[in-house]
Amino acid sequence: MTTPFRIAMAGLGTVGTGVIRLINENAAMIADRAGRPLEIVAVSARDRNRDRGVDLSDFAWCDDARALAGTPDADCVIELIGGSDGPALELARDSLNAGKSFVTANKAMIAHHGMELAELAENASVSLKYEAAVAGGIPVIKGLREGAAANRIDRVYGILNGTCNYILSTMEKHGSDFEEVLKKAQELGYAEADPGFDIDGVDAAHKLAILAALSFGKALDFGGVETAGIRSIMAADIGQAKALGYRIRLLGMARLNDGKLFQRVNPYLVPESHPLAHIDGSTNAVVAEGNFSGRLMFQGAGAGDGPTASAVVADLIDIARGDSGSVFAMPVQTMARADRAESGNREGKSYIRFVVADKPGVLAEITAAMRDASVSIESLIQTQKTDDGSVLISMVTHSSRESDIGASLATLSSSSSIHGTPMVMHLLSEAD
Amino acid sequence: MTTPFRIAMAGLGTVGTGVIRLINENAAMIADRAGRPLEIVAVSARDRNRDRGVDLSDFAWCDDARALAGTPDADCVIELIGGSDGPALELARDSLNAGKSFVTANKAMIAHHGMELAELAENASVSLKYEAAVAGGIPVIKGLREGAAANRIDRVYGILNGTCNYILSTMEKHGSDFEEVLKKAQELGYAEADPGFDIDGVDAAHKLAILAALSFGKALDFGGVETAGIRSIMAADIGQAKALGYRIRLLGMARLNDGKLFQRVNPYLVPESHPLAHIDGSTNAVVAEGNFSGRLMFQGAGAGDGPTASAVVADLIDIARGDSGSVFAMPVQTMARADRAESGNREGKSYIRFVVADKPGVLAEITAAMRDASVSIESLIQTQKTDDGSVLISMVTHSSRESDIGASLATLSSSSSIHGTPMVMHLLSEAD
Repeated sequence: MTTPFRIAMAGLGTVGTGVIRLINENAAMIADRAGRPLEIVAVSARDRNRDRGVDLSDFAWCDDARALAGTPDADCVIELIGGSDGPALELARDSLNAGKSFVTANKAMIAHHGMELAELAENASVSLKYEAAVAGGIPVIKGLREGAAANRIDRVYGILNGTCNYILSTMEKHGSDFEEVLKKAQELGYAEADPGFDIDGVDAAHKLAILAALSFGKALDFGGVETAGIRSIMAADIGQAKALGYRIRLLGMARLNDGKLFQRVNPYLVPESHPLAHIDGSTNAVVAEGNFSGRLMFQGAGAGDGPTASAVVADLIDIARGDSGSVFAMPVQTMARADRAESGNREGKSYIRFVVADKPGVLAEITAAMRDASVSIESLIQTQKTDDGSVLISMVTHSSRESDIGASLATLSSSSSIHGTPMVMHLLSEAD
Repeated sequence: MTTPFRIAMAGLGTVGTGVIRLINENAAMIADRAGRPLEIVAVSARDRNRDRGVDLSDFAWCDDARALAGTPDADCVIELIGGSDGPALELARDSLNAGKSFVTANKAMIAHHGMELAELAENASVSLKYEAAVAGGIPVIKGLREGAAANRIDRVYGILNGTCNYILSTMEKHGSDFEEVLKKAQELGYAEADPGFDIDGVDAAHKLAILAALSFGKALDFGGVETAGIRSIMAADIGQAKALGYRIRLLGMARLNDGKLFQRVNPYLVPESHPLAHIDGSTNAVVAEGNFSGRLMFQGAGAGDGPTASAVVADLIDIARGDSGSVFAMPVQTMARADRAESGNREGKSYIRFVVADKPGVLAEITAAMRDASVSIESLIQTQKTDDGSVLISMVTHSSRESDIGASLATLSSSSSIHGTPMVMHLLSEAD
């Protein structure tokens, strides 16, 4: 057997210990597939003495993760610490500068610093790989970087956050309200105690920015992702959507059009005929539309120690086999920054839901504001009263400019009859 | 720019001309992704003078495809002729023996001769790639070979034939009978004039054998695929399945269990909760279950010149980038032949449909035969009369040994009340 591929690993949480278990359990097969055995030589974590259920005695121990970049015999460093900056970023820079390949599951770091790190990797002729950073165990980075490499990709989108999809599909199944399902998800460990990062769409936005850079060959632009989450979705919205033949899903959506980059994380109404409508629970799914391949979809577990470890070790096998090619498919110096597309210029059908006072004239007020902004209504339903005596008005517009919808809502923002902020969701279409 | 990656291509049908169009249209992007431009240097086809809508004047012309193996400046040969043997196989052998990498869309050739060709490729240290041979434009070979490389895969299955899926989902949608939909599919060009290769499951069996070898690291065994098609499925079967919460799909199913290889192409009842139940039309989808990744699914267009060309050119980009690793993920000499699993030992629920004479005692005869073979019935429905006055009896069994079901049907085969061969389909479950 040839020389082992030697690894230093920072972070021994559930994913880190999953990587150790995987490399032990599938060792012989991995050695055959990689052409050489994978060998962990050094590890680092906060607490040396915690029982993690795996034997660490063969590995050198570093108290300071950043010191792993200097592990003399390591070919590659794995980072599973997390955080967009701090020790994770220092370790990434130091490892790549030291000529070691680098594998990470850290979507925040790649979303914020991916271009800088890719340049370091390409200058040092080593690999920077991040399959586990997007959609957990699904090989979607590989699928886009290599599997779809022959295509110009026009649109990439999908269900990128398992917590949100679990909450939405559970609300759908049981007709429950958001707060109730979130609480249950927290009890079951599907949602964090502080859930904002997931349910406000930030996590999905990190992943979307990475997918967009990789798909379009444009500079990663996390700051350009318009981001909204799922907190304001009511059981009634899901019921209305269903009656119209749609399911509500939080989608990340990116499109390159005339050189302009559009990136948005927002709940969408997905038609039941679309495969994303059938992705339930914490499953993730990514759709890419290539100019020759047509629509490709990749789905699987978006999180969890097993799937994430599977993605990390796939990256290791690739590097051990002699992976080559650019971090984001294209050489980083060719990845120009794209102008951001004006979302107001986008056209499509939207779902808008108002919570209004139960008194005469409200419907006339809303429909007049719509008419004045040139927003034409395709269907409208005034549904149930809520506990506090308010009434829900849900509508679907004909295809409209988003700026016109914004203008109609601006007009209505001063209305004393409308409670809170209206909920706006787009209907997923071929044109999005 | 570095030296171009030079290609000789045999076969200028719709896929071959698609490859030329793709390489022209996406040339700059492909050169960035591959690290060097792709350049077709020679082509071969039967008729030099046919107008194919692409300019061939830059390419050397060979009347005999087999001569392409000798193209002095070609790094790689593409084979798009088809046929498991004959010129395609000769070209493959000669190209690999001449130290040229080889890319093919030819599932029949890989299913029959994949092991021999993989050995030639590995001995010559060149690549043999066949992404386009399975599931068209979906990068499932890459997904299994590399994306899921860290996993022991226990089961791989999916919808591998777009013609059958188009027919079944159209029958489902319109309640039509098989013959009627087949005829329409032939008119639309979705089915061949001689459709046996597709609708009798042979095409799916070729693909399944390839997926099984790649997933399990066992020698390719096309002869071991139990194969049945969709000719006998009636509109009533689809209706019954739907009433029970299932959709009928032709699946290829492979499992490695205790070192024994089970491979089957057969119509299955797929529960509506399973993602394969929602794959409609000519779409293909492949599911792989890894011991760390969990369930992965890849879906997209299973045929067509654009998707197939996308897969062929992805292979070219990989080779141009310096693809390495084994043809079937594992070195071919490690791929032992697995014993074939006895399908009779398999247990699960089955759907059985009889067409019977409308006379007293038939139901008693059938249920007695079931009882005597220890097959227990979960649900049974006697449905409509057919045009000739026959009656349909459909049942779902409790979990039973397949050999017991076979025994019950053997008993009934001499019955004068049962018309034709009963239709048996398995219910897809976690245990399959």
